[in-house]
Amino acid sequence: MSHDVSEDGWSPQGPVTELSDAASWDLLRGRTFGRLGLSQDDRPEIYPVNFICDGESILFRTAEGSKLRELTHNRHVVFEADAETNGGVWSVILKGQAEVLTVDPVLTEEALAAFPAWVPTQAFVYVRITADTLRGRLFEHHLPIGHL
Amino acid sequence: MSHDVSEDGWSPQGPVTELSDAASWDLLRGRTFGRLGLSQDDRPEIYPVNFICDGESILFRTAEGSKLRELTHNRHVVFEADAETNGGVWSVILKGQAEVLTVDPVLTEEALAAFPAWVPTQAFVYVRITADTLRGRLFEHHLPIGHL
Repeated sequence: MSHDVSEDGWSPQGPVTELSDAASWDLLRGRTFGRLGLSQDDRPEIYPVNFICDGESILFRTAEGSKLRELTHNRHVVFEADAETNGGVWSVILKGQAEVLTVDPVLTEEALAAFPAWVPTQAFVYVRITADTLRGRLFEHHLPIGHL
Repeated sequence: MSHDVSEDGWSPQGPVTELSDAASWDLLRGRTFGRLGLSQDDRPEIYPVNFICDGESILFRTAEGSKLRELTHNRHVVFEADAETNGGVWSVILKGQAEVLTVDPVLTEEALAAFPAWVPTQAFVYVRITADTLRGRLFEHHLPIGHL
Protein backbone atom coordinates (compact mmCIF):
# COMPACT_ATOMS: atom_id res chain seq x y z
CA MET A 1 0.00 0.00 0.00
CA SER A 2 1.27 3.46 -0.78
CA HIS A 3 2.00 5.79 2.08
CA ASP A 4 0.87 9.32 2.53
CA VAL A 5 3.86 11.02 4.02
CA SER A 6 2.85 14.55 3.15
CA GLU A 7 1.22 15.13 6.51
CA ASP A 8 3.90 16.81 8.49
CA GLY A 9 1.51 18.81 10.58
CA TRP A 10 1.07 16.79 13.75
CA SER A 11 0.92 19.25 16.56
CA PRO A 12 2.87 17.51 19.28
CA GLN A 13 6.45 17.25 18.23
CA GLY A 14 7.64 14.52 20.50
CA PRO A 15 9.07 11.35 19.04
CA VAL A 16 6.97 9.87 16.22
CA THR A 17 7.26 6.28 15.05
CA GLU A 18 5.84 5.36 11.64
CA LEU A 19 4.03 2.03 11.79
CA SER A 20 3.97 -0.67 9.15
CA ASP A 21 0.76 -1.43 7.26
CA ALA A 22 0.47 -4.73 9.12
CA ALA A 23 0.85 -3.03 12.48
CA SER A 24 -1.63 -0.32 11.46
CA TRP A 25 -4.28 -2.86 10.46
CA ASP A 26 -3.69 -4.79 13.68
CA LEU A 27 -4.37 -1.62 15.64
CA LEU A 28 -7.46 -0.82 13.58
CA ARG A 29 -8.81 -4.33 14.14
CA GLY A 30 -8.64 -3.70 17.88
CA ARG A 31 -10.97 -0.68 17.66
CA THR A 32 -14.62 -0.28 16.74
CA PHE A 33 -14.96 3.50 17.01
CA GLY A 34 -13.39 5.94 14.58
CA ARG A 35 -13.99 9.15 12.68
CA LEU A 36 -14.92 9.65 9.08
CA GLY A 37 -13.79 12.83 7.36
CA LEU A 38 -15.59 14.17 4.31
CA SER A 39 -15.52 17.31 2.28
CA GLN A 40 -18.69 18.97 1.05
CA ASP A 41 -18.28 22.05 -1.13
CA ASP A 42 -14.71 22.24 0.17
CA ARG A 43 -15.96 22.36 3.77
CA PRO A 44 -14.70 19.62 6.05
CA GLU A 45 -17.00 17.34 8.01
CA ILE A 46 -16.21 14.77 10.68
CA TYR A 47 -18.59 11.98 11.65
CA PRO A 48 -17.98 9.60 14.53
CA VAL A 49 -18.69 6.06 13.35
CA ASN A 50 -18.60 2.55 14.66
CA PHE A 51 -16.69 0.37 12.25
CA ILE A 52 -15.14 -2.97 11.64
CA CYS A 53 -12.24 -4.06 9.46
CA ASP A 54 -13.25 -6.46 6.69
CA GLY A 55 -9.96 -7.63 5.29
CA GLU A 56 -8.13 -4.46 4.39
CA SER A 57 -11.21 -2.31 4.17
CA ILE A 58 -13.35 -0.43 6.67
CA LEU A 59 -17.07 -1.13 7.01
CA PHE A 60 -19.61 1.03 8.76
CA ARG A 61 -23.36 1.40 8.71
CA THR A 62 -25.50 4.43 8.19
CA ALA A 63 -29.17 5.12 7.81
CA GLU A 64 -30.69 4.71 4.39
CA GLY A 65 -31.45 8.17 3.06
CA SER A 66 -29.22 9.95 5.57
CA LYS A 67 -26.98 12.86 4.74
CA LEU A 68 -23.99 10.69 5.50
CA ARG A 69 -25.10 8.08 2.98
CA GLU A 70 -25.40 10.75 0.30
CA LEU A 71 -22.10 12.34 1.19
CA THR A 72 -20.27 9.07 1.31
CA HIS A 73 -21.22 7.47 -1.97
CA ASN A 74 -18.34 7.36 -4.43
CA ARG A 75 -16.42 9.94 -2.50
CA HIS A 76 -12.91 10.51 -1.41
CA VAL A 77 -12.93 10.09 2.32
CA VAL A 78 -10.48 9.95 5.17
CA PHE A 79 -10.88 7.68 8.16
CA GLU A 80 -9.09 7.90 11.47
CA ALA A 81 -8.93 5.71 14.54
CA ASP A 82 -6.67 6.07 17.51
CA ALA A 83 -6.15 5.04 21.09
CA GLU A 84 -4.12 6.16 24.03
CA THR A 85 -1.15 4.02 24.93
CA ASN A 86 1.09 3.95 27.93
CA GLY A 87 2.79 7.32 27.46
CA GLY A 88 1.39 8.37 24.14
CA VAL A 89 -1.18 7.71 21.46
CA TRP A 90 -1.35 5.85 18.19
CA SER A 91 -3.31 7.11 15.24
CA VAL A 92 -4.03 5.41 11.92
CA ILE A 93 -5.25 7.50 9.02
CA LEU A 94 -6.63 5.85 5.92
CA LYS A 95 -7.52 7.70 2.75
CA GLY A 96 -9.61 6.12 0.08
CA GLN A 97 -12.90 5.78 -1.68
CA ALA A 98 -16.19 5.03 -0.01
CA GLU A 99 -18.88 2.94 -1.64
CA VAL A 100 -22.40 2.27 -0.44
CA LEU A 101 -22.92 -1.48 -0.74
CA THR A 102 -25.97 -2.72 -2.56
CA VAL A 103 -25.67 -6.16 -0.94
CA ASP A 104 -25.01 -6.54 2.76
CA PRO A 105 -21.68 -8.20 3.53
CA VAL A 106 -21.69 -11.57 5.28
CA LEU A 107 -20.33 -10.88 8.74
CA THR A 108 -19.68 -13.03 11.77
CA GLU A 109 -21.66 -12.51 14.95
CA GLU A 110 -18.45 -11.29 16.55
CA ALA A 111 -18.00 -8.65 13.86
CA LEU A 112 -21.62 -7.58 14.05
CA ALA A 113 -21.26 -7.07 17.80
CA ALA A 114 -19.07 -4.05 17.07
CA PHE A 115 -22.12 -2.19 15.86
CA PRO A 116 -24.53 -0.75 18.39
CA ALA A 117 -28.04 -2.10 18.43
CA TRP A 118 -29.99 -0.63 15.57
CA VAL A 119 -33.37 0.97 15.93
CA PRO A 120 -35.39 -1.82 14.29
CA THR A 121 -37.65 0.52 12.35
CA GLN A 122 -34.79 2.24 10.58
CA ALA A 123 -33.22 0.80 7.44
CA PHE A 124 -29.47 1.00 7.10
CA VAL A 125 -26.85 0.46 4.47
CA TYR A 126 -23.25 -0.63 4.72
CA VAL A 127 -20.49 1.61 3.45
CA ARG A 128 -17.08 0.20 2.57
CA ILE A 129 -13.93 2.30 2.50
CA THR A 130 -11.14 0.89 0.41
CA ALA A 131 -7.75 2.33 1.27
CA ASP A 132 -5.55 4.13 -1.21
CA THR A 133 -3.10 5.25 1.44
CA LEU A 134 -2.56 4.21 5.02
CA ARG A 135 -0.50 5.93 7.65
CA GLY A 136 -0.04 4.67 11.16
CA ARG A 137 1.93 6.58 13.73
CA LEU A 138 2.84 6.24 17.36
CA PHE A 139 3.22 9.56 19.13
CA GLU A 140 5.03 9.70 22.43
CA HIS A 141 4.32 12.48 24.84
CA HIS A 142 7.75 12.80 26.32
CA LEU A 143 11.04 13.54 24.71
CA PRO A 144 13.78 11.02 25.34
CA ILE A 145 16.04 11.84 28.26
CA GLY A 146 18.84 13.98 26.95
CA HIS A 147 16.63 16.04 24.66
CA LEU A 148 15.05 18.04 27.45
CA MET B 1 -24.07 29.39 19.92
CA SER B 2 -25.84 28.10 16.84
CA HIS B 3 -26.23 24.39 16.45
CA ASP B 4 -25.49 22.27 13.47
CA VAL B 5 -28.28 19.79 13.43
CA SER B 6 -27.94 18.78 9.80
CA GLU B 7 -25.71 15.85 10.61
CA ASP B 8 -28.06 12.95 10.76
CA GLY B 9 -25.52 10.48 9.59
CA TRP B 10 -24.22 8.92 12.80
CA SER B 11 -23.79 5.27 12.10
CA PRO B 12 -24.89 3.66 15.34
CA GLN B 13 -28.56 4.19 15.73
CA GLY B 14 -28.94 3.61 19.40
CA PRO B 15 -30.25 6.35 21.65
CA VAL B 16 -28.63 9.74 21.07
CA THR B 17 -28.74 12.58 23.58
CA GLU B 18 -27.97 16.09 22.39
CA LEU B 19 -25.79 17.95 24.89
CA SER B 20 -25.95 21.60 25.86
CA ASP B 21 -23.14 23.97 24.90
CA ALA B 22 -22.09 24.16 28.54
CA ALA B 23 -21.97 20.38 28.85
CA SER B 24 -20.10 20.12 25.55
CA TRP B 25 -17.43 22.62 26.64
CA ASP B 26 -17.12 20.83 29.99
CA LEU B 27 -16.41 17.59 28.15
CA LEU B 28 -13.92 19.27 25.80
CA ARG B 29 -12.09 20.79 28.75
CA GLY B 30 -11.55 17.30 30.12
CA ARG B 31 -9.70 16.16 26.99
CA THR B 32 -6.38 17.16 25.44
CA PHE B 33 -6.44 15.00 22.32
CA GLY B 34 -8.75 15.59 19.38
CA ARG B 35 -8.93 15.56 15.61
CA LEU B 36 -8.84 18.46 13.21
CA GLY B 37 -10.66 18.11 9.90
CA LEU B 38 -9.70 20.19 6.89
CA SER B 39 -10.55 20.25 3.25
CA GLN B 40 -7.91 20.78 0.60
CA ASP B 41 -9.11 20.95 -3.02
CA ASP B 42 -12.34 19.35 -1.80
CA ARG B 43 -10.40 16.38 -0.36
CA PRO B 44 -10.84 15.77 3.34
CA GLU B 45 -7.94 15.57 5.77
CA ILE B 46 -7.86 14.58 9.42
CA TYR B 47 -5.02 15.49 11.75
CA PRO B 48 -4.73 14.24 15.31
CA VAL B 49 -3.88 17.18 17.57
CA ASN B 50 -3.28 17.90 21.20
CA PHE B 51 -5.37 20.84 22.23
CA ILE B 52 -6.62 22.94 25.08
CA CYS B 53 -9.74 25.00 25.52
CA ASP B 54 -9.07 28.70 25.97
CA GLY B 55 -12.41 30.12 26.94
CA GLU B 56 -14.75 29.00 24.20
CA SER B 57 -12.05 28.43 21.63
CA ILE B 58 -9.67 25.59 20.84
CA LEU B 59 -5.91 26.10 20.83
CA PHE B 60 -3.34 23.79 19.35
CA ARG B 61 0.25 24.08 18.25
CA THR B 62 1.86 23.19 14.99
CA ALA B 63 5.28 23.56 13.46
CA GLU B 64 6.12 26.86 11.79
CA GLY B 65 6.17 26.25 8.06
CA SER B 66 4.32 22.94 8.26
CA LYS B 67 1.64 21.85 5.85
CA LEU B 68 -0.86 21.99 8.70
CA ARG B 69 0.00 25.62 9.41
CA GLU B 70 -0.58 26.51 5.79
CA LEU B 71 -3.78 24.55 5.57
CA THR B 72 -5.15 25.95 8.77
CA HIS B 73 -4.74 29.67 8.32
CA ASN B 74 -8.04 31.46 7.79
CA ARG B 75 -9.81 28.25 6.96
CA HIS B 76 -13.06 26.62 7.70
CA VAL B 77 -12.22 23.70 9.90
CA VAL B 78 -13.99 21.08 11.94
CA PHE B 79 -12.71 19.80 15.25
CA GLU B 80 -13.80 16.69 17.07
CA ALA B 81 -13.06 15.21 20.48
CA ASP B 82 -14.69 12.24 22.10
CA ALA B 83 -14.33 9.70 24.86
CA GLU B 84 -15.83 6.41 25.79
CA THR B 85 -18.28 6.40 28.64
CA ASN B 86 -19.84 3.65 30.65
CA GLY B 87 -21.95 2.07 27.91
CA GLY B 88 -21.39 4.49 25.08
CA VAL B 89 -19.39 7.39 23.82
CA TRP B 90 -19.70 11.15 23.73
CA SER B 91 -18.54 13.23 20.80
CA VAL B 92 -18.34 16.99 20.45
CA ILE B 93 -17.98 18.50 16.98
CA LEU B 94 -17.10 22.13 16.56
CA LYS B 95 -17.10 23.95 13.25
CA GLY B 96 -15.45 27.28 12.82
CA GLN B 97 -12.57 29.32 11.56
CA ALA B 98 -8.95 28.70 12.34
CA GLU B 99 -6.42 31.46 12.75
CA VAL B 100 -2.68 31.23 13.18
CA LEU B 101 -1.78 33.51 16.10
CA THR B 102 0.95 36.05 15.62
CA VAL B 103 1.40 36.44 19.37
CA ASP B 104 1.56 33.43 21.66
CA PRO B 105 -1.32 33.29 24.14
CA VAL B 106 -0.55 33.55 27.83
CA LEU B 107 -1.23 30.11 29.26
CA THR B 108 -0.98 28.61 32.69
CA GLU B 109 1.55 25.88 33.41
CA GLU B 110 -1.38 23.53 33.84
CA ALA B 111 -2.69 24.36 30.37
CA LEU B 112 0.75 24.05 28.82
CA ALA B 113 1.11 20.59 30.30
CA ALA B 114 -1.53 19.39 27.84
CA PHE B 115 0.95 19.80 25.05
CA PRO B 116 3.66 17.20 24.61
CA ALA B 117 7.23 18.29 25.04
CA TRP B 118 8.37 20.13 21.96
CA VAL B 119 11.55 19.37 20.10
CA PRO B 120 13.51 22.45 21.18
CA THR B 121 15.03 23.09 17.77
CA GLN B 122 11.67 23.38 16.04
CA ALA B 123 9.65 26.61 16.07
CA PHE B 124 5.91 26.36 16.52
CA VAL B 125 2.86 28.56 16.21
CA TYR B 126 -0.45 28.50 18.00
CA VAL B 127 -3.65 28.08 16.05
CA ARG B 128 -6.97 29.15 17.51
CA ILE B 129 -10.29 27.74 16.35
CA THR B 130 -13.28 29.92 17.08
CA ALA B 131 -16.56 28.04 17.01
CA ASP B 132 -19.42 28.94 14.71
CA THR B 133 -21.38 25.81 15.58
CA LEU B 134 -21.05 23.29 18.36
CA ARG B 135 -22.70 19.93 18.62
CA GLY B 136 -22.27 17.57 21.52
CA ARG B 137 -23.88 14.16 21.58
CA LEU B 138 -23.97 11.17 23.86
CA PHE B 139 -24.37 7.89 22.01
CA GLU B 140 -25.45 4.81 23.88
CA HIS B 141 -24.59 1.41 22.58
CA HIS B 142 -27.65 -0.39 23.74
CA LEU B 143 -31.27 0.20 23.02
CA PRO B 144 -33.49 0.67 26.01
CA ILE B 145 -35.17 -2.48 27.27
CA GLY B 146 -38.39 -2.85 25.39
CA HIS B 147 -37.01 -1.75 22.05
CA LEU B 148 -35.15 -4.97 21.35
